[in-house]
Amino acid sequence: MSNEYTIVFRAEGYEDRSVAVSSGETILEAAKRANVPLDAPCSGNGTCGKCRVKALSGEAESEQSRHVSGEDYAQGYRLACAARVRSDMVVFVPPSGFAYQSRIKISEGEREEAGFSAFREELREGGFTGDSGIEILTLTLPRPDTGDPMADRERLLFALETRRGEAVPEPRALALSLHAQRKLPTVLREGNFSVTCVIRHDAGEDRILNVFPGPQTPAEGRHPQAAGWPRAAGLAIDIGTTSVSILLLDLLTGEPLAMGSAGNGQIRYGADVINRIIESGRPGGLERLRRAVVDECLVPLIRALCRKGGIDSEQIYRAVVAANTTMTHLFLGVNPANLRLEPYVPAFFEGGSIRGVDAGLELHPEAELILAPNIGSYVGGDITAGTFSSGVYKKETLSLLIDLGTNGELVLGNADFLMSCACSAGPAFEGGDISCGMRATDGAVEACVVDEDTMESAPRIIGGPRQKPAGLCGSGLIDLIGELFRCRVINARGKFIREGKRVFRDEWGMAGYILAFAGETETGRDLVLSEGDIDNFIRAKGAIFSAIRTMLGSLDFTVDAIEEVYIAGGIGSGINVENAIRIGMFPKLPLERYHYIGNSSLSGAYAMAGSRRAAGKVTEISRGMTYLELSSHPGYMDEFVAACFLPHTDGGLFA
Amino acid sequence: MSNEYTIVFRAEGYEDRSVAVSSGETILEAAKRANVPLDAPCSGNGTCGKCRVKALSGEAESEQSRHVSGEDYAQGYRLACAARVRSDMVVFVPPSGFAYQSRIKISEGEREEAGFSAFREELREGGFTGDSGIEILTLTLPRPDTGDPMADRERLLFALETRRGEAVPEPRALALSLHAQRKLPTVLREGNFSVTCVIRHDAGEDRILNVFPGPQTPAEGRHPQAAGWPRAAGLAIDIGTTSVSILLLDLLTGEPLAMGSAGNGQIRYGADVINRIIESGRPGGLERLRRAVVDECLVPLIRALCRKGGIDSEQIYRAVVAANTTMTHLFLGVNPANLRLEPYVPAFFEGGSIRGVDAGLELHPEAELILAPNIGSYVGGDITAGTFSSGVYKKETLSLLIDLGTNGELVLGNADFLMSCACSAGPAFEGGDISCGMRATDGAVEACVVDEDTMESAPRIIGGPRQKPAGLCGSGLIDLIGELFRCRVINARGKFIREGKRVFRDEWGMAGYILAFAGETETGRDLVLSEGDIDNFIRAKGAIFSAIRTMLGSLDFTVDAIEEVYIAGGIGSGINVENAIRIGMFPKLPLERYHYIGNSSLSGAYAMAGSRRAAGKVTEISRGMTYLELSSHPGYMDEFVAACFLPHTDGGLFA
Repeated sequence: MSNEYTIVFRAEGYEDRSVAVSSGETILEAAKRANVPLDAPCSGNGTCGKCRVKALSGEAESEQSRHVSGEDYAQGYRLACAARVRSDMVVFVPPSGFAYQSRIKISEGEREEAGFSAFREELREGGFTGDSGIEILTLTLPRPDTGDPMADRERLLFALETRRGEAVPEPRALALSLHAQRKLPTVLREGNFSVTCVIRHDAGEDRILNVFPGPQTPAEGRHPQAAGWPRAAGLAIDIGTTSVSILLLDLLTGEPLAMGSAGNGQIRYGADVINRIIESGRPGGLERLRRAVVDECLVPLIRALCRKGGIDSEQIYRAVVAANTTMTHLFLGVNPANLRLEPYVPAFFEGGSIRGVDAGLELHPEAELILAPNIGSYVGGDITAGTFSSGVYKKETLSLLIDLGTNGELVLGNADFLMSCACSAGPAFEGGDISCGMRATDGAVEACVVDEDTMESAPRIIGGPRQKPAGLCGSGLIDLIGELFRCRVINARGKFIREGKRVFRDEWGMAGYILAFAGETETGRDLVLSEGDIDNFIRAKGAIFSAIRTMLGSLDFTVDAIEEVYIAGGIGSGINVENAIRIGMFPKLPLERYHYIGNSSLSGAYAMAGSRRAAGKVTEISRGMTYLELSSHPGYMDEFVAACFLPHTDGGLFA
Repeated sequence: MSNEYTIVFRAEGYEDRSVAVSSGETILEAAKRANVPLDAPCSGNGTCGKCRVKALSGEAESEQSRHVSGEDYAQGYRLACAARVRSDMVVFVPPSGFAYQSRIKISEGEREEAGFSAFREELREGGFTGDSGIEILTLTLPRPDTGDPMADRERLLFALETRRGEAVPEPRALALSLHAQRKLPTVLREGNFSVTCVIRHDAGEDRILNVFPGPQTPAEGRHPQAAGWPRAAGLAIDIGTTSVSILLLDLLTGEPLAMGSAGNGQIRYGADVINRIIESGRPGGLERLRRAVVDECLVPLIRALCRKGGIDSEQIYRAVVAANTTMTHLFLGVNPANLRLEPYVPAFFEGGSIRGVDAGLELHPEAELILAPNIGSYVGGDITAGTFSSGVYKKETLSLLIDLGTNGELVLGNADFLMSCACSAGPAFEGGDISCGMRATDGAVEACVVDEDTMESAPRIIGGPRQKPAGLCGSGLIDLIGELFRCRVINARGKFIREGKRVFRDEWGMAGYILAFAGETETGRDLVLSEGDIDNFIRAKGAIFSAIRTMLGSLDFTVDAIEEVYIAGGIGSGINVENAIRIGMFPKLPLERYHYIGNSSLSGAYAMAGSRRAAGKVTEISRGMTYLELSSHPGYMDEFVAACFLPHTDGGLFA
């Protein structure tokens, strides 16, 4: 271990990064230290094959594996996690090896998903709009003179008090933020003692957060998106284990201004929350993970949204974060170790009053940061926010919310009760742990049909007809596996039982289905769904179905009792429920009971950002929700094993 | 102007600093850009002589002056403000040339000044102690188990609520700071679910600011100053134009833990507030001035006090700043330009609720920063705090507070009324603008007696009998000028009218008195009081006396009406009132009516840090105090001119 070598990492569009390594260290370990974001969702145990790199010079030993063919090996390809360094090296990282494969993506203001405008309408009807606590108000002050040399701050607060006096009977404390105080002398004189104030109404206090010169109304002819225009913006932030989505909104109108998403930079420390918690316990790990999501994802994404929406970061006055319990801990830099140690105790359920800047975000320095409350170690704010936006909490009928993330979470209930549970599905639904998997972004196959006779397939690809396929997102996986099962290309164990042009079997005995040949794909390599991928997917869908059965069983319900099912998560809007039922992922219910509601966590955060009543309702929901700990529930393991077939060992459930 | 040279500044104990300069720039301008803190209290107009440097190599042109003799000039000495660079240079800065001549000085916990313990006793009697709003409380929580997996935060707040339930009838909001949240999981388990909390009681909310493991009481055998010991500390900060003083105190007991002072680093941008305001209007000037006091003075001084007091900066929960109006603006980074433009409007009177960290201090991240309120452009928080600590606001008899700073401020009044005014005395009382002047620290001559026959003097020097004299502080100047006047060495205009061994007259026609010869001094140069110094001093004392007369006149009082006079400021405790009256600085009143109360601004800040009631009382005082603007008051200029004699043109006032 004493020999020291130097590795240089090289990638297109990046500067070289070099790092010293000890003999015997893996390339992946070296990459982590060099802060090169190599994708390694399986945390480096050689199963996912995502960390393929190419040695341009130098020597690294590794056994060959199904992810690196003999030819590839000769060309210098290695799995970074399996390759031990034996000399100085120059290592090329192909674009597919980056954990940032999914870069920041900004979309137009309006959320494109179906259902979002209906959700906004529902919020209006429920009285969950227009009470963010932020007001914009123009005041005109008397000009100071030698007979009236009152200071700027007191002059402003006095004018506000006078104005308030007309409306509010009891006196309220008035305050001015330091940020506004610093601008005030110039703003007052630029605006000839007319000043437009952004005011937050807190319990017992009206606080002026920001000031702008003059009376500023669109009527005066300035474009409402002009720089410096005194708008009040808020952020709805969903931090998923795999991806981060943020919506920038106008706090007064609720109008979405810009929306974007990015991969969660923590992914290079492990694909699931357990591996992140383990990493956080290493020296410096907690801060490393915090920065990976805050500095590398949230801050640049918020900057991009601000540019898109024509907003200065100082004009963001309120931010809501909805995330699972581990993500909320890592986001705030709070040690999550006890989440995975009996008796599984989070460091907090509710976030209380926090300033966004204290969590490292770039906002107005006194902007509030609100967290959707956690209710247990594995059911977090993403679910409490999602329960609100799905509407399950107010239904008369028994409803089920299924959030298909890396952590799969379920909520069963109605207006009378709410029960939640969580299962570790793994990242398959978001394209992780699947050799051909990817998030539901451009290039992802989101649906496909297989011809029973020829075994040829007709894939639908996100990004339009000219887009070449790059991989499969969750909905595409469900479809392809469902179709292969329907066409009897694979059997109940997920093994290939037919042969043909599109089915291959490699030297390691592993079979697979070639969805697209190298010449047709974005990556220039065959797009293959292997038996290993199908195995991983079956475990993921088995985890979901067995969780549903266990939760129902704990309440003496059967599957038929469920009257509505809400599917949420980043699995992709193209989800084919018929195929999901066919492979035993969802219970056999009439298709019309299923509703895809997209990112319910983000929708909930959006509601909470624009409305204090909505935020209060989510807290109320969280306090009333019970939590079923599956891992200690008798019978769950048996259910899980039985569900790891296509569709299930008890075929009668899907007949 | 196109030629570019490089200047290297060299000083003992510092690394060289180099900067590019254009031909014709002065050495002082270059020093400012190189961030070399050259002392220039006269703002570079060649009068004070403090910026003497020595060219070790290279060429700078300047006319000779009374501050640089022909011999000195030949040796390379120059006034940095007058010397224009003509080549690359290496410039040596002697210790006396540093604006930091008065480095950070830390004294023992107890304030040494007479009167401080009496003041503390007075606070106790007045009920102005023990209500800082901070409490330290140990709670023991039930351990979590599988039947009780409540999160750490909610477990803690529930225990606090239960405890409160016994004492407080109405429910109060409970909150936990992010700082404490980050520590909580580890602290709870280290302390076996016993936790000592630092709690702030705000309006309607109890907020846990910090947590420490276990029940921590001195009874358990740990030394109360051990690191990590959960004490609650506060800061009283006096920011003067020339010097900064800070007292670190225990918020629960009021005990002073450490005290220290330093020069105000802004001094290199001008000795008085007017020059600072002008500098703040230059590009980047406001931020430069803010950093000069915050980053260069307050932060290192607070760190030194924390080390001395055995306190971590996160254990400081409350800070109070008392300063004149310009200093409060510059400290907060608020543009002070309007302070010197009619109608002289400050940006704020009161500071409102500010977090100390937002002002750049290193404290607990949610520590409150309170400002003693300003009442006008030239009467600030130092005076409102000082009015509280002097007790003038509660006297039955007519009392006068005189704060002898660079800005001289007066408060006249009693329990029924309070009137204030300010006059620009210049920095003479703090040793500025006087060639032999210095602050009241080690080496300063604080008192002296002159023998009428021999003109020999017997100086008393701060720092003990072995200390060589380095200069004169304010009280020493009063004494020496008073004695020279008494002994008829100088006349009513401050001109020398006797000759002898100790009186000299230089080639420029300027006369002076040699208090100590080169061999006897700390600096190795003659310690000389020149006619120029006496001139400057006479203007300073004239400003004070004429302000007193004008204020009294505006209320139709005569001098005799004043029953008590409180002298405050950094002039030095050795002030000889008899000599001060002799030279016409103070009115002729019986000596027993005069009381030296030291730094009344710091004392007031100390009271405000330890007591919310005291802080409230200072605000009440500030709101009730009227302000007399001398500069626009008819008759003030005449009074001033008449007072620029020893003692006065109207000798009858001092007969």
